[in-house]
Amino acid sequence: MKLAAQNIIVRLEIDTQIANFSNAAAAIAQLQGDIIAIDMIHSERDKTIRDVTVTIPGQHAMERLNGALQSVPGIKLIHMSDRTFLLHLGGKIAMQPKTPILNRDDLSRVYTPDVARVCKAIEEDQTKAYTLTMKRNSVAIVSDGSAVLGLGNIGPHAAMPVMEGKAVLFKQFADVDAIPICLDTQDTDEIVRTIKQLSPGFGGINLEDISAPRCFEIEERLRKELDIPVFHDDQHGTAVVIYAGLINALKLTGKTLSDSRIVICGIGAAGTACTKMLLAGGARHIIGVDRVGILTAGNSYSNSNWNWYAEHTNKERLTGGLREAIAGADVFIGVSAGGILTREHIASMAEKPIVFAMANPEPEILPEQAVDLVAVFATGRSDYPNQINNVLCFPGIFRGALDSRSAVINEEMKLAAAEAIASVIPEEELTPMYIIPSVFNSKVVEVIRNKVIAAAQASGVARRSYT
Amino acid sequence: MKLAAQNIIVRLEIDTQIANFSNAAAAIAQLQGDIIAIDMIHSERDKTIRDVTVTIPGQHAMERLNGALQSVPGIKLIHMSDRTFLLHLGGKIAMQPKTPILNRDDLSRVYTPDVARVCKAIEEDQTKAYTLTMKRNSVAIVSDGSAVLGLGNIGPHAAMPVMEGKAVLFKQFADVDAIPICLDTQDTDEIVRTIKQLSPGFGGINLEDISAPRCFEIEERLRKELDIPVFHDDQHGTAVVIYAGLINALKLTGKTLSDSRIVICGIGAAGTACTKMLLAGGARHIIGVDRVGILTAGNSYSNSNWNWYAEHTNKERLTGGLREAIAGADVFIGVSAGGILTREHIASMAEKPIVFAMANPEPEILPEQAVDLVAVFATGRSDYPNQINNVLCFPGIFRGALDSRSAVINEEMKLAAAEAIASVIPEEELTPMYIIPSVFNSKVVEVIRNKVIAAAQASGVARRSYT
Repeated sequence: MKLAAQNIIVRLEIDTQIANFSNAAAAIAQLQGDIIAIDMIHSERDKTIRDVTVTIPGQHAMERLNGALQSVPGIKLIHMSDRTFLLHLGGKIAMQPKTPILNRDDLSRVYTPDVARVCKAIEEDQTKAYTLTMKRNSVAIVSDGSAVLGLGNIGPHAAMPVMEGKAVLFKQFADVDAIPICLDTQDTDEIVRTIKQLSPGFGGINLEDISAPRCFEIEERLRKELDIPVFHDDQHGTAVVIYAGLINALKLTGKTLSDSRIVICGIGAAGTACTKMLLAGGARHIIGVDRVGILTAGNSYSNSNWNWYAEHTNKERLTGGLREAIAGADVFIGVSAGGILTREHIASMAEKPIVFAMANPEPEILPEQAVDLVAVFATGRSDYPNQINNVLCFPGIFRGALDSRSAVINEEMKLAAAEAIASVIPEEELTPMYIIPSVFNSKVVEVIRNKVIAAAQASGVARRSYT
Repeated sequence: MKLAAQNIIVRLEIDTQIANFSNAAAAIAQLQGDIIAIDMIHSERDKTIRDVTVTIPGQHAMERLNGALQSVPGIKLIHMSDRTFLLHLGGKIAMQPKTPILNRDDLSRVYTPDVARVCKAIEEDQTKAYTLTMKRNSVAIVSDGSAVLGLGNIGPHAAMPVMEGKAVLFKQFADVDAIPICLDTQDTDEIVRTIKQLSPGFGGINLEDISAPRCFEIEERLRKELDIPVFHDDQHGTAVVIYAGLINALKLTGKTLSDSRIVICGIGAAGTACTKMLLAGGARHIIGVDRVGILTAGNSYSNSNWNWYAEHTNKERLTGGLREAIAGADVFIGVSAGGILTREHIASMAEKPIVFAMANPEPEILPEQAVDLVAVFATGRSDYPNQINNVLCFPGIFRGALDSRSAVINEEMKLAAAEAIASVIPEEELTPMYIIPSVFNSKVVEVIRNKVIAAAQASGVARRSYT
C-alpha cells in the first residue's frame, strides 16, 4: 500500500551548551526525512527554540521522529503536530455573514425591528422561506457516527471532522452551504424524529455514515415525511458514481447494460443502492453475493434487506458462492472486503470483463494482480486510475435539487447525475485507464446540475423552473 | 411612534407614448418621497424599464407607493421590493471553508484518507473535539418559533430571519460561528431531546424566542443534561443588560441595590430572570406584579413560576396592584405591556426614581410623558436614549464561555457580564441620558469576555485557562 509522505512540524528546544541544530538535522536525515522550513521562535544565550517542518516517508512517521529526536542529547521535543492536525485546529468551517452590520441602519434591517416584516411575510406564505432565508442554499449533513469511513462506530464527536470536510467540499465544488450535525443517538426512531424537527431551516438533508440496515429505514421514513430532498450519500452517491463508471466501461467493451451479467459483492448500503440504480437503468441480470453466498429467492435471511434483494435479482435462482456467481459474468462490482477476489475468479468471467473493486482501503483484488486479465478496472482509491469517488456526485446533485427546489432526489435525478458524470469524458477520450472524470474536473458539477434540474422538471418534482 | 423612512426599489415600465419619467417622479414627490437612484434596465422605442430607489417616510410606505404609481397612466409597476427584503434574499449567512481544497493533497487532508487520523484522535480523547472541530467556536441558536419578537407564535420557518440575524451579530461582534436551527415542534420533551441529540458538534446552545413557561423547564433540563453552556437569551441576556443599566442608574442617584425598593412588572421569562439576577447581586426588596396584581406568598397561582416568585420576593407580603406596589419604590422595571404606567404612579415613587420601561414596541410609559418626573429613564427602543438591548450581552458572554471552555454560564458569569457592560462607561461620563453603552461600542465584547472568563475560572466551571 502506497502512503503519502507525512508533513510534521516539531518544536525543538536546543540546549546550545550541549547540542546544536545540526544534531537534530542528522537525526531527521537518518529517517530519510526532508527539512522543509525552519522558524526561529525564541533565542537566548544557552537555549534556542525552533519550529521545524519536515517530511518523513513511511508509516508511523510521528512515532519514529519522536524516538529519533528524543535520543539526541541536549535536544528537547516540546511539541509535535502534523499538517493535517494543524489544518483541523478549531475546525474547518466558519459561519460568514453575507452583509456586515456597520451602523444602526444595518442593524435595524438585519435584526429588529425591520426583520419582523420579513418574518411576517414568511408566516403568511411559507414558501417564501426559500427566498428569504438560508433554506434556499443549505443542506444539513447528518450523521450518528455509526459507520464512519473505514473506522466503524466512532460516535458523533469523532465523526465531526468528516462531516466538516464534507461541508468544505459542498461549498467549494457547488457553493452549497452545508452544516454538519452529528447526533448523540443511534436509535432509528430518535434519529428520524430529530432530523424532522431540525429540518425547517434547511433545503435538503444529506445523511452520512449511518450503518446498515438502520440507514435504509431512516432514509425511507424521512423521504415520506419531509418535503425536502433526503439523500444517503453512502448509498446513492456511491451508486451514482459506480453507474457513471459502468456506462463508460460498457461503451469501451461494446456491451450493453441490459445484456450484461453483473455480480454485486457485498449487499450492504452501497451494494443495495447500486443494484437499485442498475435495475432502474435497465440491467436485467444481477446476482448479489454476501457472506452467506449468492442471495436467492426462497431463502429466508435474517437481514430483511437481503430478502428484498433476493426477490428482485437472480431470476435464474442460481445458488452457491462467489465462484458460482462470477463464472461467465461480464461485470464484477465489489463493495465488500479486501482480497476476496482471485485471478481464478476473473479468469472464469466472460470476455472483456469489467471489475470495480471498491473495498476500502484494500480492494477486493489489487489492480497490479489482475489488470492483465480485465478490460476495465476501477477502484475507490486515489492512487490508481479510475477512482470511483462519491465526491463526484453529491455537490452537483444537491446543487441541482436545490436550484430546482425539488421535493425529493428521485431515481430519475440519480440516473441523470450518473449520465452527466459519464458524459463529461468525450467518447474519443475514453480509455480503459480513463472512464471517470477527476473530482477536480471543473465541468462535473455544472453538467450534473443541469441534467438533474431537467430530470426533476420532467419527473414533476421540481417546484421552481430555474435554469 | 417614530418610524424610520423606508427604502424601496421599484421596477417601472413606462409606455413612452403615454407617459415619461417625470410623471412617476411627481407621484413619488406627492408622498414626500426622495428618489435616491435610477438604473435604466431596458430601453426600446416605445418603452423603458427602470429600477428606481426611493425613500418614503411613514407607515405602509409600500402600499401607498404602489397606489400612487398604479394611478399614473402609462406607467406599469413590474416589481417592488424594499431594501430589507432585498438584503434577505437567499438568507443572511453562508458557510465558509477556512482552507480551500486546491488539489489532491489538500483533499486528502481535509477529507479522506487523512481525516481518519483526526477522527481517531477524537475517538481516543473526546476533549480533542474542542481543538480539532468547530465545537471550539460554535453555538447553535435554537428556537421553536413560539415567541418571536413581538410577533408571537409564528412557527419555525418564519422565525429563521431572526435567528439568522442573531448569527450575523454573533459573528460580527464576537467572531462566534452561530448556526440557526428552528425546530418543527413546540413540545417541551421533544425540544429537550432534539437539542441534546444535535449538541455534540456545538460548544454552546443559545435558546431563543421560546415562550414561557416552557422556556424555563427546557433550559433547566438542558443545563443539567448537557456539558456545554445553555443560555436562554430572552431571559438572561435581557436580565444582564437591565442589571448593567441599573448599576449605573443607582450610581447616578446615589442609591444602593440592597437598600432600593424595586418593582418588577411582568413576571414572565425576562422578569423572572431579571429578578434572580438582582437577588444574586444583593437586592433585598423586590416586588413582582403581573395581571393578578402583586405576587404574594401564601397565594396559589396557576403559573408555577409565580408561586416560586412569590416565595422569593415581597418579604413584607404586600398585597394589591401596581399602585400599591410602586408607592415609595426606588426602581420600576417594566417588561410587561405598553401604556400601563401613569404619571401618578411615578409621582408616588421615592425620590429620584429610576424607570426602565421596556415593553416592546410601546413602553409602559413614553419617555416624553414621564422624563420630567424621573432621575433616570431607559427603554428597549433604539430611538430613545438608554436602550436596554440584549445585543450588548450575548456575543461577549458566549465569547467568554467558549474561550474558557465553561460547562455552563452560571450566575457569577452573568453578574460579571453586567458589571462589565456597566464599566464600559467611565463614571465621569455617566449622565441620566447615558447609562448604557451603544451596541456599536467596540470595547463591550472584549470587556465582557475578560470578566466572564475570570468569573468562570473563579467559580470553577472553566475547563481551560485561556486569557
